[in-house]
Amino acid sequence: MTQAVLGDDVYGEDPTVNQLEELAAKSIGKPAACLMPSGTMANLAALLVHVPRGGKVVVGNESDIYLYEAGGASVCGGIVYEPIPTQPDGNLALDDLAAVLPPDADDPQFALPGLICVENTHNRMGGQALSQEYLAELKRFATGHGLAVHMDGARIFNAAVATGVSADQIAAHADSIQFCLSKGLSAPIGSILAGEVAFIEKARRVRKMLGGGMRQAGVFAAAGLLALTSMVDRLADDHQLAAQLAEGLAEVDGIDIDPKAVTTNIVLFRVTADGLNDNQFLAAVQQRGLVMGEFGHGRIRAVTHRGLTSADVSAAVAIVADVVRETS
Amino acid sequence: MTQAVLGDDVYGEDPTVNQLEELAAKSIGKPAACLMPSGTMANLAALLVHVPRGGKVVVGNESDIYLYEAGGASVCGGIVYEPIPTQPDGNLALDDLAAVLPPDADDPQFALPGLICVENTHNRMGGQALSQEYLAELKRFATGHGLAVHMDGARIFNAAVATGVSADQIAAHADSIQFCLSKGLSAPIGSILAGEVAFIEKARRVRKMLGGGMRQAGVFAAAGLLALTSMVDRLADDHQLAAQLAEGLAEVDGIDIDPKAVTTNIVLFRVTADGLNDNQFLAAVQQRGLVMGEFGHGRIRAVTHRGLTSADVSAAVAIVADVVRETS
Amino acid sequence: MTQAVLGDDVYGEDPTVNQLEELAAKSIGKPAACLMPSGTMANLAALLVHVPRGGKVVVGNESDIYLYEAGGASVCGGIVYEPIPTQPDGNLALDDLAAVLPPDADDPQFALPGLICVENTHNRMGGQALSQEYLAELKRFATGHGLAVHMDGARIFNAAVATGVSADQIAAHADSIQFCLSKGLSAPIGSILAGEVAFIEKARRVRKMLGGGMRQAGVFAAAGLLALTSMVDRLADDHQLAAQLAEGLAEVDGIDIDPKAVTTNIVLFRVTADGLNDNQFLAAVQQRGLVMGEFGHGRIRAVTHRGLTSADVSAAVAIVADVVRETS
Amino acid sequence: MTQAVLGDDVYGEDPTVNQLEELAAKSIGKPAACLMPSGTMANLAALLVHVPRGGKVVVGNESDIYLYEAGGASVCGGIVYEPIPTQPDGNLALDDLAAVLPPDADDPQFALPGLICVENTHNRMGGQALSQEYLAELKRFATGHGLAVHMDGARIFNAAVATGVSADQIAAHADSIQFCLSKGLSAPIGSILAGEVAFIEKARRVRKMLGGGMRQAGVFAAAGLLALTSMVDRLADDHQLAAQLAEGLAEVDGIDIDPKAVTTNIVLFRVTADGLNDNQFLAAVQQRGLVMGEFGHGRIRAVTHRGLTSADVSAAVAIVADVVRETS
Repeated sequence: MTQAVLGDDVYGEDPTVNQLEELAAKSIGKPAACLMPSGTMANLAALLVHVPRGGKVVVGNESDIYLYEAGGASVCGGIVYEPIPTQPDGNLALDDLAAVLPPDADDPQFALPGLICVENTHNRMGGQALSQEYLAELKRFATGHGLAVHMDGARIFNAAVATGVSADQIAAHADSIQFCLSKGLSAPIGSILAGEVAFIEKARRVRKMLGGGMRQAGVFAAAGLLALTSMVDRLADDHQLAAQLAEGLAEVDGIDIDPKAVTTNIVLFRVTADGLNDNQFLAAVQQRGLVMGEFGHGRIRAVTHRGLTSADVSAAVAIVADVVRETS
Repeated sequence: MTQAVLGDDVYGEDPTVNQLEELAAKSIGKPAACLMPSGTMANLAALLVHVPRGGKVVVGNESDIYLYEAGGASVCGGIVYEPIPTQPDGNLALDDLAAVLPPDADDPQFALPGLICVENTHNRMGGQALSQEYLAELKRFATGHGLAVHMDGARIFNAAVATGVSADQIAAHADSIQFCLSKGLSAPIGSILAGEVAFIEKARRVRKMLGGGMRQAGVFAAAGLLALTSMVDRLADDHQLAAQLAEGLAEVDGIDIDPKAVTTNIVLFRVTADGLNDNQFLAAVQQRGLVMGEFGHGRIRAVTHRGLTSADVSAAVAIVADVVRETS
Repeated sequence: MTQAVLGDDVYGEDPTVNQLEELAAKSIGKPAACLMPSGTMANLAALLVHVPRGGKVVVGNESDIYLYEAGGASVCGGIVYEPIPTQPDGNLALDDLAAVLPPDADDPQFALPGLICVENTHNRMGGQALSQEYLAELKRFATGHGLAVHMDGARIFNAAVATGVSADQIAAHADSIQFCLSKGLSAPIGSILAGEVAFIEKARRVRKMLGGGMRQAGVFAAAGLLALTSMVDRLADDHQLAAQLAEGLAEVDGIDIDPKAVTTNIVLFRVTADGLNDNQFLAAVQQRGLVMGEFGHGRIRAVTHRGLTSADVSAAVAIVADVVRETS
Repeated sequence: MTQAVLGDDVYGEDPTVNQLEELAAKSIGKPAACLMPSGTMANLAALLVHVPRGGKVVVGNESDIYLYEAGGASVCGGIVYEPIPTQPDGNLALDDLAAVLPPDADDPQFALPGLICVENTHNRMGGQALSQEYLAELKRFATGHGLAVHMDGARIFNAAVATGVSADQIAAHADSIQFCLSKGLSAPIGSILAGEVAFIEKARRVRKMLGGGMRQAGVFAAAGLLALTSMVDRLADDHQLAAQLAEGLAEVDGIDIDPKAVTTNIVLFRVTADGLNDNQFLAAVQQRGLVMGEFGHGRIRAVTHRGLTSADVSAAVAIVADVVRETS
């Protein structure tokens, strides 16, 4: 970061940013890519480019785009969110998608859908990767109805590592994709939005309008280059640690977890011990140095990452076991 | 209409409009009211006044506001729709409402709900009126969480006539309400938005911005006056005709309907006869002079109104019976 | 109005509305037309169809669209207004238009213009009609830079009558045009938006979204038919009365007016009498039954219309003379 | 940057960001501050917090906010820009401000102004600092009419160094202010938005919605800390180099510049040499290693910064002299 060659990226003149965008596009198998300050902005820009004012974006009701991104597409784009059920495996059922198509597209009463968003891996569904079969089917459905597909691939390389399918093959089923250089890839900040050349040109306009154009962005693009070149393969370690954590927690009385559902770096479980609610549990483990988060529907989320060892995970299991034992 | 005293309503100087707005406010038990060109604009203006840019409006997934009003609140207001299940009786379950409250209102990831919308009577749920008990409970819930309640009362006088509760008592459970002067009340166009004085002042600003300020609107306000003074009581006739229609249809083999579910002027039923899909059925009855509409979820909708007699309804039943018999 | 054949115009099924829209399109020389509740909505819908989210509309700084329509294009369309000087004859100078073109259209810092709006006749410039030469030049400029032209022709038939050029020849220089059925054409409410077929289809979607779709709109479309068939030629009378008024006022000491500047139905003048400000003047004439309006830049506006006779105008001059004499 | 203590700033848990925000607030004399990815977002967030949907922001027609920020306030906020003339000294004349106040704030035809923006130093006016007398008068005017004042202080510390008035005293005349950590302060990216505590809380919500919330932002907050602690005083060097450049250019035949107008780090001049247009001039100097920019109205802009020495400036003057001599 301190040695990056810099320029003014608002004018496209930062060589390190340009290098990152080229590598990112290649890694994900799209013609063009654009560096964004966050995954939220990458998703927002994608929605604004895909969907005109007054159009609809179909999202999963458990998707990060719908739940955690402050409704930006309605505010900045005049776009209507149409949330439909998220299936336990993270899919959106084609039947549910078909049901939101307007009975008569010429009837001006209906806002018209323009885009379907999927999330891969799916955060709220426990980090599950979507299957290639499903994605191919989804893309066929979308194309058949004149809809685009955007993939919120914040953790797309986790999906690639977990399924053994390369990221570009996964992304081939989407018109656009965003992925985070932070999270498992360990860069401090930054996300990539990738797609066709004309799409990315429009996304750059939106980025500037939103205030995401940054001057000497090469400083953190340098970290992004490192993320893409040296952090992808090691995601397997995060997955292994997550499996270890899940198996460990499954042994603890008062913890409800299915270790087979843990396939990437996200571990969801429930505290079933008597007399211990979630907030008490979280406070108690944090006091012992273990940070986990409340995750809705009575679930706790733990995430593994580059800073952890197998010993850390064993210690985490021990902390949970202690807390549950002492309080119940 | 041809004898109405006129002025320029954009400047508040049309005496017939002013007279209508006063009567409408009184009829619905609110301090102020404003004439709108349509129910869509009345609802849209209400949403824009209640909810700031970036806020959420909670709506039923089967509500007209969500399904048939082209997403105007997102487009014109930067408001996020949060659709939740509509119960069979038209209610929104308090549990579902509680579930959309953000776990942490200070967390900037969440768009914050500002308004709950209910529909009364509920069109897609077969014209059912909401109970006073439910509405009181809903208002308590809303107030307890700092939310406003808007009632899409397009057919509120049908609810009043059906339940025997006066319209103002029903509207007392909402901060604002819109109702249509057209539909059962038989005026050619126009809707009323009613609420507190300051609310209506803001709604007038929104109306002008949307292009709903009309110059010599007294022409159709005159029809609105007639609607309010002489068309409310006769809604009972519409309800009786709807009951007659439902009972008649229940006798027809190949028609599925529960007459007890028909409580106002809307009749929903299914065509179950073999070899006759909905579009074929609708075309066949229309050819014989009977207009009904497709209504989603495999249902047909018929609506009774001021232009019908009991003999017309008998004839309608006969037409349906003929069509079903001949084609199956 | 009371005998109009009606239907539901939201579904395009009101025969009187359809008849009006056909006649209106023909009168203005465009392939299609759509009835709107107001000129404000007609203009707003035009802007929303012509300009995508984030684009610019270039308007005169003295235009009704910019000054009196509550900023709707920014609110409902995410469109940026770019006001440029209005010339004394109502034109927008081509040099000023050229100056707002971005130096580099690929630079994402710039919102890109998509539309130029002109007003004809021009209200704030005293009801002047734009010349065919200017309009032809403007259209060439716009086409050369990929911009559309929308004409706010609220009083386009006044322009036609005053210049002897037919309304369709004037409108030929614009991609779209709106005109009012009220004002000089004397219908109580309603405006027409006209343009290409695809443009009008999109405008109908916008109209519904804004809440301008009205059910049995044939009631006032009937008045619109009368306006178009029997009120256009008589605008010459309004112009003659305006000339009479201007000439009469020019004789009054303490009134500043150039009668040659009055070419249609709008009369602008200044009160220069000592000890009499505009509000006092307006109150004093209104007390004697004469309604005029404050019009910015120290001007008073009077408008002639179908309800006036030459004797009324003489009486108006006498009232003004009395008021000025008595108070100075 | 590589040693910064990090956390997740979206949750307010990055200690380096928190440290920077505290220092920034103190430096600029406001109760609270928030780190933004860019000045564009800082300005946009300020506008969205100050002005409700449908309100107006009054801006200078030569301001960066109006010209270079892609119209974000209309797109994301439904806010109308009202550009008024920028005076040669960068001020907005109070008369011009008074002229945009609506004649009748209750008339729904008018979008209501909510905010005045000033720029200090003023980029397009050659880097001039606004006087304390003017700013005090402006604030009085604004307060008197219920308007807020936002200062685009991208180069506020240049204004402070040039005028000898501390930055917090300057900012005291504004309700909110943004300034850049990049530009003269030499951090790679990032801007600060400062204001009251409640204002900044709302700005954080907007930041997240726009996608400006960044995870481990401490990495570049560390550079911001250095910018604020060690780069402010050295802006005087930039100003001295700009003066040297201006005086040198004034000696060159074929260059038009008034050195007395150069008071901070921005140097504006014109190329008047025959047979040399601006683009040719810029290309010729760039070929010799000197980068300047076209700046509208036939002007060239040069900016001095931390990477330059007095010898560099002398060399720049020599390059300009050579280019002008050789081509004319």
